Amino acid sequence: MELIKHRIILASKSPRRQHLLKELGLHFEVRTKDTDESFPLHLKGAEIPEYLCKKKAEAFRPELKPEELIITADTVVWIGNEVLNKPEDHADAVRMLRMLSGNMHQVFTGVCLMSTEKTRVFTAETKVYFKDLSDAEIEHYILHSKPFDKAGAYGAQDWIGLVGVKRIEGTYFNVMGLPMFELYAELTAF
Amino acid sequence: MELIKHRIILASKSPRRQHLLKELGLHFEVRTKDTDESFPLHLKGAEIPEYLCKKKAEAFRPELKPEELIITADTVVWIGNEVLNKPEDHADAVRMLRMLSGNMHQVFTGVCLMSTEKTRVFTAETKVYFKDLSDAEIEHYILHSKPFDKAGAYGAQDWIGLVGVKRIEGTYFNVMGLPMFELYAELTAF
Repeated sequence: MELIKHRIILASKSPRRQHLLKELGLHFEVRTKDTDESFPLHLKGAEIPEYLCKKKAEAFRPELKPEELIITADTVVWIGNEVLNKPEDHADAVRMLRMLSGNMHQVFTGVCLMSTEKTRVFTAETKVYFKDLSDAEIEHYILHSKPFDKAGAYGAQDWIGLVGVKRIEGTYFNVMGLPMFELYAELTAF
Repeated sequence: MELIKHRIILASKSPRRQHLLKELGLHFEVRTKDTDESFPLHLKGAEIPEYLCKKKAEAFRPELKPEELIITADTVVWIGNEVLNKPEDHADAVRMLRMLSGNMHQVFTGVCLMSTEKTRVFTAETKVYFKDLSDAEIEHYILHSKPFDKAGAYGAQDWIGLVGVKRIEGTYFNVMGLPMFELYAELTAF
């Protein structure tokens, strides 16, 4: 389905995002920049990844060429009016997984599509329900998988996602970091 | 988490099931047999994979050793009181994808755990919502992915699953063919 006219650039270091975009069958290039991931503290839920994906895209604007389309994304875990970022250390990962245990949380991924002519930002939401995780399961997971680069201290495709997630509402790919259904629709309409 | 006392045998040719079970971190052996996959026509929904996974396991019973635990599974796509099996040919795959297009269907995976002492059968359900698929999308998918070995003529991890599934309710791994959350709980309690 070569419906997309632009040269696509994925601005993400995430191997999961690169893998998912490849599965779409698109040709694209990966280009990354280190961006400051701070955001105004009054932002809530979906507003955070919307703000951050746009900020990431803006950093590329000065060098964008007319035929190029840049894709940036940001994923956050949101629970009880709090955002869970990447855990700082082992204790922080334990704290986060204890919060998620036995509860529902929301995963929001914000995506920004930007060309020299147009900018489009959208967000997808998935609700994720974890079972009650035992301390032994939490310790086992952190020791083996070291989820320190993951928002909320877990990966849905990891052991803890396999055995601990009892239900989702929304799409799985959104939880992995790129909402493919929405992205495909937006790309073909861009 | 080596909580399982038995020698585990996965009786499935599906590379997706083998991959998922590996991700649990378990040691297991793959052993397969060709089984007749017919079932009584009065069975509905979850009853079909429950019947078939048990039938698959029964075929192994004569040779089961006391320390062994066999895992069999069967996945069906159920829509509007009809089961969709593997498509017979291109036209049949088109027919199935047109049925799924714009509709919700249920995916049921039945799993049977069997040792010489005990048998346990359980089923997991996931609701899958497809967007309206265009004829061009359906043709593109069938030509490129040849989904003739897949119930309902699609794989959730394929291109059509990425761009066409707008929502699921339940677990993604169940749609892939093995309900990991339920399987882990049942294995540790077996």
